Parts: sequence; C-alpha cells; structure tokens
Amino acid sequence: MVSAALVIIGNEILSGRTKDANLSFLAGRLNTLGIQLREARVVPDVEGEIVAAVNECRAKHDYVFTTGGIGPTHDDITAAAVASALGTALELNAEARRRLEAHYDDPSKLNEARLRMAHIPVGAELVDNPISAAPGFRLENVFVFAGVPAIMQAMFESVAPTLAGGATMISRSVSAALAEGSIAAGLAAIQERYPAIDLGSYPRYSAAGYGVAIVARGPDGAQVDAAIAEVRALMRSLDAEPVEEG
Amino acid sequence: MVSAALVIIGNEILSGRTKDANLSFLAGRLNTLGIQLREARVVPDVEGEIVAAVNECRAKHDYVFTTGGIGPTHDDITAAAVASALGTALELNAEARRRLEAHYDDPSKLNEARLRMAHIPVGAELVDNPISAAPGFRLENVFVFAGVPAIMQAMFESVAPTLAGGATMISRSVSAALAEGSIAAGLAAIQERYPAIDLGSYPRYSAAGYGVAIVARGPDGAQVDAAIAEVRALMRSLDAEPVEEG
Repeated sequence: MVSAALVIIGNEILSGRTKDANLSFLAGRLNTLGIQLREARVVPDVEGEIVAAVNECRAKHDYVFTTGGIGPTHDDITAAAVASALGTALELNAEARRRLEAHYDDPSKLNEARLRMAHIPVGAELVDNPISAAPGFRLENVFVFAGVPAIMQAMFESVAPTLAGGATMISRSVSAALAEGSIAAGLAAIQERYPAIDLGSYPRYSAAGYGVAIVARGPDGAQVDAAIAEVRALMRSLDAEPVEEG
Repeated sequence: MVSAALVIIGNEILSGRTKDANLSFLAGRLNTLGIQLREARVVPDVEGEIVAAVNECRAKHDYVFTTGGIGPTHDDITAAAVASALGTALELNAEARRRLEAHYDDPSKLNEARLRMAHIPVGAELVDNPISAAPGFRLENVFVFAGVPAIMQAMFESVAPTLAGGATMISRSVSAALAEGSIAAGLAAIQERYPAIDLGSYPRYSAAGYGVAIVARGPDGAQVDAAIAEVRALMRSLDAEPVEEG
C-alpha cells in the first residue's frame, strides 16, 4: 500500500470559521492514483505544532501534503516550519521571485510581504500555481500547497503525474432501508470471508426513515463485486431491497 | 487556556465518501464555553491508530472528543480502542443495556450486535443519546461520541454543562476588496502592537474579484475592538472600504 497524510494548517479551521474542502478532494484524487489517504491532522498556525505534525507524518507515510499558510501575511508560517522540520533553511528562490515579478504588472507591487512568498526551503522543487503565481513546493516526500481550494487543486494536478501509486482501491456501495443492528451479524460474517476487502457500514437517519449504506473497498474488483453480491443477498434475506449506490 | 482535541474516527472520512461536519460544530460550541479546539485528527478504523491518537491528544489537551465508530457493526471499534488506550477493559454496562432494552419495542431486536453498543469501558460514565439510545461515554478527559452529526450534537449538549472552560474568545471580522499582499505589512504592525490578539488574514477569490477578510480573536473584547478599529483604518488608508463581517 502506498499511503499519504494530509496536514491542514490554519487557525480558521480550528475556530470553525472555515470548513475544510481539501481533504475530500485529496482523498478522491489520491485514490485514482493508487495512493491511500491514511491520516489527516488539523494544526494551528504555531511553528512547533506544524513541525511535529509534518515530522510524524513523513516518517509514517509515503507522501505528506500540507495545505494553508503560504501567503504573504504574518500568519503564513508554513514554509519556515517545513524548512525547520526537514532541517533546512529558507532562501529567496530566484525562480519563485521571477514568477512573482512576471505576475505583477507594476514592479512596485512585489513588496516585501509578497516577496515572502518567494522564500522557499533550500533544496525544494517549486510546484506551479497557475492561478496566483506564488508557488508551492516539494521537499523530500512533503508537498506544500495553498489552502484556497482552487489553488490547492491546481497545485495537486501539477504534481499528480509525478506521484507513484500502488493498486487503486475499487469501491462499491449498496444501501437498504434496514437498521444497522439488523444487518450487523451477517455483515461481520461477510467481512470474515473477504479479509482483503474493507467493508464499512454507514447508518443514515432522515425524515424518510432510517437506512444503511454498505461500502466494499479493495484492490481487487472481482472480490469487491463478490462481497457486494453477498451484501445484496443478505439485505434481501432481511426483506429489504438493495439499492445500488455506485 | 483550556484546550481540546478532536479525534475523528472513520475510513469513510479518509476515503472522501463522507464529509466531516462535527469539527466546525464542536469548534463553535467549545468556544462559547471558553474551550479552544487546538487540534483535530482523522484516523482510520484501526485500533492502533485510534489508541495512539487518543493517547497523544489526552496528554496534550484538557479535553479530547472522539466521533464515530460506536455503532453495532464489526467496523465499530472505538469503545475497545479507547478502553485499551486508557488501560482498562470493556464490560457489559448494566445501565447501557437497560437503555437499549427500553428503546426496542420487541426484546428480540436487542441482538448480539446491538448489545455490543452496551459494552463500555470499566469506570466510564455514560453520555445520553436522546436519538437512538445507544450511549456515548466519558472516561477521564476523553469523551466518546457518535459520528452521525445529529447524535454527536445531542451528546455534546448533554455533557456541555459539565465542561470547565476558561476565557471565551471574542472574534470580530472585517473585509475589504484588497489583495492580501497590499495589507500584509500594516497588518503585521498591528499584530505586533496586540500580541494577545490572534490576527488572521484570509484571502478570497471569486467572480466578483479578490478580497481579504481579517479576523481578530482574543479573550479581551476591548482589545479585539481596538485591533479591528486599526485594521479598518489600515483598509481606508489603502483606499478600500471596510465591510463588517461580525
């Protein structure tokens, strides 16, 4: 398994002001590349917290992605923290500076604050930012992206072809108007017969009544299909009609 | 500062299937109680990962909240993992069983799978679940809640009166049609003058153009007001009209 972690950097997520939109995007895109997102952390704009999270995650996972904290203001400390985590220093990166110079029509706009965005850890490779020029970067297995979803997504796409994945996980889901507790025993038996499949059970409660969605996930499509066929039969044996969810 | 961490347990979040809705709820509610959410982690349905996250977070923070993984199916392993993290065992809790018995009209519905939800760590206090009966629990400073947002929220409200908070953070926000890079230097100067205030800068890009929202956050409302007044003056000095955001 090729694994990844996401470190979401920002007080605004922890205060509830901003809802993160990068985790679900990254999870889905990584999966198509055969990389499993196995961990995510949200940390405040505090250097020690960023350093600790990046170092723990890069030791455990093949890839680490960070989002947030690479803008021009005083609370943007991700580049310095990642440099510190990886035992290197920030330097004014000539190519990053050139990209910012090209971006602003008026040279006086490239003030000291904006030049902070050209300070990149020594040894890092730049990651393109087609939207607002200020680049992200990669240092070893750590990819540093912007927090704004449109920019984060563009940065991800620019590095996606360089990521080495393993098996893609195939996922299929079927739901029924059943309580989780009714299907649990049969489901556990199916899980035992398919140890390579990850069988998840997700209840729902709505005005229309309760229900449960069962998701089968694994690298072997035929096994996923076989497990889902058993789940479907289990639902019918409990007098509920399975509904394909994809 | 009274601090808290959230441990979100569930493969469905890491696969991108389900978007977490509990972090922003918890952040907002904790803040009204004078508790700061300082960290969040998303971990898969793997006992070792849950144990590690709970133990690291409970050592660092006054309160730890977990969401997810307390249902009747085989992938619901949170209670066992939290028991293991805190060095205790699961037992069939008589009061939890009584609540489940009272919940089901037909006693045969309380099958073995559903009885799993009455297995609670030794020494834990139950947390009420007014929606579907199966309780959460508290063990030391760790609160274990359901993942379904409506149930999670009801569980939080039932324990909220027992939480001991510190100072409530006062937050005010003002925005303007300015690029972050134009306001960054003046903002850093204001931040230096108000070290007890956390001044955050959040750019936005939309069809209507770019803009920036500045958030001032701190325990002293008068200081927050004074900092925001300086931000407003800074925006006007850059020929932009500040818009109050609350």
